[in-house]
Amino acid sequence: MSSFWNNNISISIFGESHGPAIGIVIDNLPPGEYIDMEKVLQFMARRAPKKDGTTTPRSEKDLPKIMSGVLNNRTTGAPLCAMIENTDTRSKDYSNLQRLPRPGHADYTGAVRYRGFNDVRGGGHFSGRLTAPLCFAGAVCGQILERRGIYTGAHIYAIHGIYDDAFSHTKITRDDILAVREKSFPVINDSQGEKMHEDIINARKGCESLGGMIECVSINVPAGVGSPMFNGLENSIAQLIFGIPAVKGLEFGAGFKVAEMVGSQDNDAFYIDENGHVKTKTNNHGGILGGISSGMPITLNVAIKPTASIAKPQETVDFREKTNEILQIKGRHDPCIVPRAVPCVEAAVNIALLSHMMDYPHF
Amino acid sequence: MSSFWNNNISISIFGESHGPAIGIVIDNLPPGEYIDMEKVLQFMARRAPKKDGTTTPRSEKDLPKIMSGVLNNRTTGAPLCAMIENTDTRSKDYSNLQRLPRPGHADYTGAVRYRGFNDVRGGGHFSGRLTAPLCFAGAVCGQILERRGIYTGAHIYAIHGIYDDAFSHTKITRDDILAVREKSFPVINDSQGEKMHEDIINARKGCESLGGMIECVSINVPAGVGSPMFNGLENSIAQLIFGIPAVKGLEFGAGFKVAEMVGSQDNDAFYIDENGHVKTKTNNHGGILGGISSGMPITLNVAIKPTASIAKPQETVDFREKTNEILQIKGRHDPCIVPRAVPCVEAAVNIALLSHMMDYPHF
Amino acid sequence: MSSFWNNNISISIFGESHGPAIGIVIDNLPPGEYIDMEKVLQFMARRAPKKDGTTTPRSEKDLPKIMSGVLNNRTTGAPLCAMIENTDTRSKDYSNLQRLPRPGHADYTGAVRYRGFNDVRGGGHFSGRLTAPLCFAGAVCGQILERRGIYTGAHIYAIHGIYDDAFSHTKITRDDILAVREKSFPVINDSQGEKMHEDIINARKGCESLGGMIECVSINVPAGVGSPMFNGLENSIAQLIFGIPAVKGLEFGAGFKVAEMVGSQDNDAFYIDENGHVKTKTNNHGGILGGISSGMPITLNVAIKPTASIAKPQETVDFREKTNEILQIKGRHDPCIVPRAVPCVEAAVNIALLSHMMDYPHF
Amino acid sequence: MSSFWNNNISISIFGESHGPAIGIVIDNLPPGEYIDMEKVLQFMARRAPKKDGTTTPRSEKDLPKIMSGVLNNRTTGAPLCAMIENTDTRSKDYSNLQRLPRPGHADYTGAVRYRGFNDVRGGGHFSGRLTAPLCFAGAVCGQILERRGIYTGAHIYAIHGIYDDAFSHTKITRDDILAVREKSFPVINDSQGEKMHEDIINARKGCESLGGMIECVSINVPAGVGSPMFNGLENSIAQLIFGIPAVKGLEFGAGFKVAEMVGSQDNDAFYIDENGHVKTKTNNHGGILGGISSGMPITLNVAIKPTASIAKPQETVDFREKTNEILQIKGRHDPCIVPRAVPCVEAAVNIALLSHMMDYPHF
Repeated sequence: MSSFWNNNISISIFGESHGPAIGIVIDNLPPGEYIDMEKVLQFMARRAPKKDGTTTPRSEKDLPKIMSGVLNNRTTGAPLCAMIENTDTRSKDYSNLQRLPRPGHADYTGAVRYRGFNDVRGGGHFSGRLTAPLCFAGAVCGQILERRGIYTGAHIYAIHGIYDDAFSHTKITRDDILAVREKSFPVINDSQGEKMHEDIINARKGCESLGGMIECVSINVPAGVGSPMFNGLENSIAQLIFGIPAVKGLEFGAGFKVAEMVGSQDNDAFYIDENGHVKTKTNNHGGILGGISSGMPITLNVAIKPTASIAKPQETVDFREKTNEILQIKGRHDPCIVPRAVPCVEAAVNIALLSHMMDYPHF
Repeated sequence: MSSFWNNNISISIFGESHGPAIGIVIDNLPPGEYIDMEKVLQFMARRAPKKDGTTTPRSEKDLPKIMSGVLNNRTTGAPLCAMIENTDTRSKDYSNLQRLPRPGHADYTGAVRYRGFNDVRGGGHFSGRLTAPLCFAGAVCGQILERRGIYTGAHIYAIHGIYDDAFSHTKITRDDILAVREKSFPVINDSQGEKMHEDIINARKGCESLGGMIECVSINVPAGVGSPMFNGLENSIAQLIFGIPAVKGLEFGAGFKVAEMVGSQDNDAFYIDENGHVKTKTNNHGGILGGISSGMPITLNVAIKPTASIAKPQETVDFREKTNEILQIKGRHDPCIVPRAVPCVEAAVNIALLSHMMDYPHF
Repeated sequence: MSSFWNNNISISIFGESHGPAIGIVIDNLPPGEYIDMEKVLQFMARRAPKKDGTTTPRSEKDLPKIMSGVLNNRTTGAPLCAMIENTDTRSKDYSNLQRLPRPGHADYTGAVRYRGFNDVRGGGHFSGRLTAPLCFAGAVCGQILERRGIYTGAHIYAIHGIYDDAFSHTKITRDDILAVREKSFPVINDSQGEKMHEDIINARKGCESLGGMIECVSINVPAGVGSPMFNGLENSIAQLIFGIPAVKGLEFGAGFKVAEMVGSQDNDAFYIDENGHVKTKTNNHGGILGGISSGMPITLNVAIKPTASIAKPQETVDFREKTNEILQIKGRHDPCIVPRAVPCVEAAVNIALLSHMMDYPHF
Repeated sequence: MSSFWNNNISISIFGESHGPAIGIVIDNLPPGEYIDMEKVLQFMARRAPKKDGTTTPRSEKDLPKIMSGVLNNRTTGAPLCAMIENTDTRSKDYSNLQRLPRPGHADYTGAVRYRGFNDVRGGGHFSGRLTAPLCFAGAVCGQILERRGIYTGAHIYAIHGIYDDAFSHTKITRDDILAVREKSFPVINDSQGEKMHEDIINARKGCESLGGMIECVSINVPAGVGSPMFNGLENSIAQLIFGIPAVKGLEFGAGFKVAEMVGSQDNDAFYIDENGHVKTKTNNHGGILGGISSGMPITLNVAIKPTASIAKPQETVDFREKTNEILQIKGRHDPCIVPRAVPCVEAAVNIALLSHMMDYPHF
């Protein structure tokens, strides 16, 4: 029940950062779906470290091998397993973590939960590396959705207080989504992106790391997908999004801004558009009402904390000896995880959407 | 899979606002737990409408009858079913909803999802009334947790831009929690509470409604409860919290503030306290690292949108006739749902915590 | 996870034999399905005690009240809760069970599992009474299936070594199913039924009880319903069937007879019938291959043990005092539960089938 | 939801017979458990083809590689993934299966269910090969159980009407279990085993295959493990056992023999043994009452059909052309799968037991 997510689509993620391999099993994919591996790799490449100084120099090829569930490039209906071997691991960097937990990491909580038997090398099963198989699944689900016109796109919305423009929540198009997806630094407003980029480089030089926010939108989800209460779209998306390490917040539509609003502002007026479709004039509801899609774009923001691994000396404890200690983290780390988390957020949304679409009549 | 939440503790919520009854089945509660019904009713009374003009005048006695699972005031280990009869219903108020969906409500999405067969009276299964059984379950789980020293408390943190003080995230005590729990208008800073109260009264007079935010804290959760990835504490809490109607956002610890932070600010330094326990000096992680409790208070904020039902005329559509229409909502409604949502948030957190505690050795 | 069954259709059964009520919540029923309550009551009446001496004289009206999920006789898509109040309870009969467990009952295992807090009156949550809500759900699911041509029928196949005829496994029709369903003592061969009936009367007089077997068949399930491995038709049916108290065995198609067969006997030859449909000449596979329906009748047998409650003195223990004791069970009991278990088996099969049909394209 | 089994222990099996690999992910294993790979391989070797003419000549090395979840031979608490590469595959043997389904196989039902996209080579995901990862998981769970004194043993109970002796259901010991486990042809009575062996050799020569039965027993399961209704020991074991291809029946304790019994025969008298423990004099209940262990040996029988692949010509159809055809199956097949299914049954029981033990206090 830990790294399993059991819904209409089920996923099971396995692996530890410095173990032999990481991977995923995806069950209940519709059979006969063409899987374009080129596009899958493109999706995953968006999560891979960059050569521009904004990410860890660890070279993760992240080449998933499909072990089952695909034949002649089409899903067979059987569980799809993809595996990524871990190759570029330098385990000696992590030798003291079993005593001195890194602030902001799960070293301490993991050690207590698993009584010291968890693999601490590179964060083990808590590592951000485990988002690679998530992206694989998201890429696969995304292709199936895009074939039905449903596109999900995300971009860096903020880094360390520098904000990008937002997507239009009522008029965003497939082209808008594809435009930002192509960029190596996925922002809408490139001049803001340059400021962010510079800020990240400075953070790296200053032994710091930066937090941020990601905006994600899905378009063309038909009205009527989801359920009220505990298995609605928001619940499923939330359960997956909070599976991405470093996520500290999630909001849909107007999100936390509702705390300052009145009802007549927040309520989205319905109207009939020129094609006879029911639409809303604004989209504070974020495309979901009562856990069910309204046909408007589904919109959400995700808060990503600064990378916990920083090179500055930090206060920690030797939790076996019960002494206060100073820790200086070595190893290779991302000064800002936000750009690489963009496809992860898309992936989580794709998986949740496809899972709920499986219930949809005539899918 | 819709109104079922299946974890170590499982819950199944049923009922429609104007049907014969609403209720809940709770499975896998530990046997032999004393259930103090007086305290359960006190918990549920915090969710009930008030007589002070801030809530709907609908009189909901909300007296849960226990149908199973409790004998001589102790849990038997069998599923606990509690039922609340719906008595004060005025169904004629809702007669036109099957054509004219209320903005901000699930009338439209529910009609599409359930092909027009859903019960629209009072919002049916989408009604905020369904949080009464959630509160029942939260009250029961809360008693079991409090017997083990774990206390969860919530308060109104904001209404329409007026902010309460925050709980201390490092030093909050059981007394702090009980103090705010006793108040009929649950805020820490009563003078801010008075401003909020006045604002709500004015909103009601002005045919408006107000959004807000709730802060919730759990103390004395031992370190090591939870799991990484999809079944961690955040995932479970999120899945339940987004089951409360009107919730638009959820953040843990520093939440969305991380988007403006650097790593050395956000990382919480570990230290050994005077009792030899591992603590953190700050609590930006909100008591959860890698989905697992750290022993620090678990802290979260929830955004609650303004009540969708407002008396002002609103633009909507007749979605059968495909015409634009003006809707004036009648019936009795809360000008601000935030105060009544406070125990609902506590309830969701209690249920998630007890469920994860069941895994905890020697619980 | 105990009395919840979570699949495409989810059910949650609650209640204790002598508590206020028993009942069920059924989630994810398709919306808009007409529920004929008259037929539901007829289904449940087949499980009710008879006046002919073959069953307990306990008078269980078993009138389910629908609390939610149905409006104007149609499913709303929201969870359907039905409740049956317990009225004719005589709790004093059971006062010594907390010390002296009845052989063949769950008194001892329940006491250990729930540390003595379980409700022992009438067997509590372990009572055969809990099959009444199962039958309710089976009746509802059955109506939805029959509307699509899928009929499930069961009959007493054996009692205490007296055998009924078997259904034809290749040519059984809807009329065959309805014919046996109408009978108050559901056997195909009435003269065998008379022998069984006489045997039961004698057993009651002799303070004994009798075991037996039930055969169940479902027709017109289209080919292609189900899944391999752990969520196939057999797995789901098995999980539900073993939820019926007193079931000790389950076999599909040729069942245990395969232990004496060779491959060329057991393999069912395929042929194209006069309508161009794929059929098999024999049906040793019981309509399921690889967990998936073949289009042939689904056939299964269920072994039902003799009622554990018999009036003869029996050896037991006082498990608190650790002494050997003699127990004489009082109260009212069925000398043979097999006739009343017939609709329970049908119900379990209906629930499993409808659940798997929800995945079926264009259901 | 197909090849996932989601319980306290969760398993996810992937792979197709002639794809790159098969494997399993096991989640929620307790951390810190020593895994003796030598013993795991011994367990799996019992499932491997033999060189004695009773099995397929396909050489399956079945060497599982552990990809995650084990470090320094101990479980880390993270998901354990084991993978077995498929090496000795001859896919050309299966080329006509997409039109001509083999009687007794899932070729036809799989083709309908997955609209012709399933991998038919070697049976694809329906292949008996998928029991290799099940055995891996069973071996791992078995080691954890044996460390706590719980032993599970199985043997060939019947082949083609030739019966082995049965285990004692009241007095079976660890030594009895280990004695049969060591044998290459696992029967209790070797002279009966020789007759079976000869029968299998003859079947192979005669282009036939043979069905049989397996008896399985678990000892030292403490009283109080399991739950009533849908998540009891029988339900969980059944859900897993029916995931083994070729299983047609399952019975616990006296099983189908109850159909000829009276209550005073079937009821197992309780007594206090010389150590003050509650025992039963007989064990018709098979160690489980009300879904919960009684402390007596858990006993079950499993019916295994004759291998569906036989070399004799068989009647089938071309289900695309809608014509009747004769099929002669080529390839390498087991004349009797029963011996190789023995460890599979043990594996399923081990997994179910460990899963339920996780709930047991102080496990």
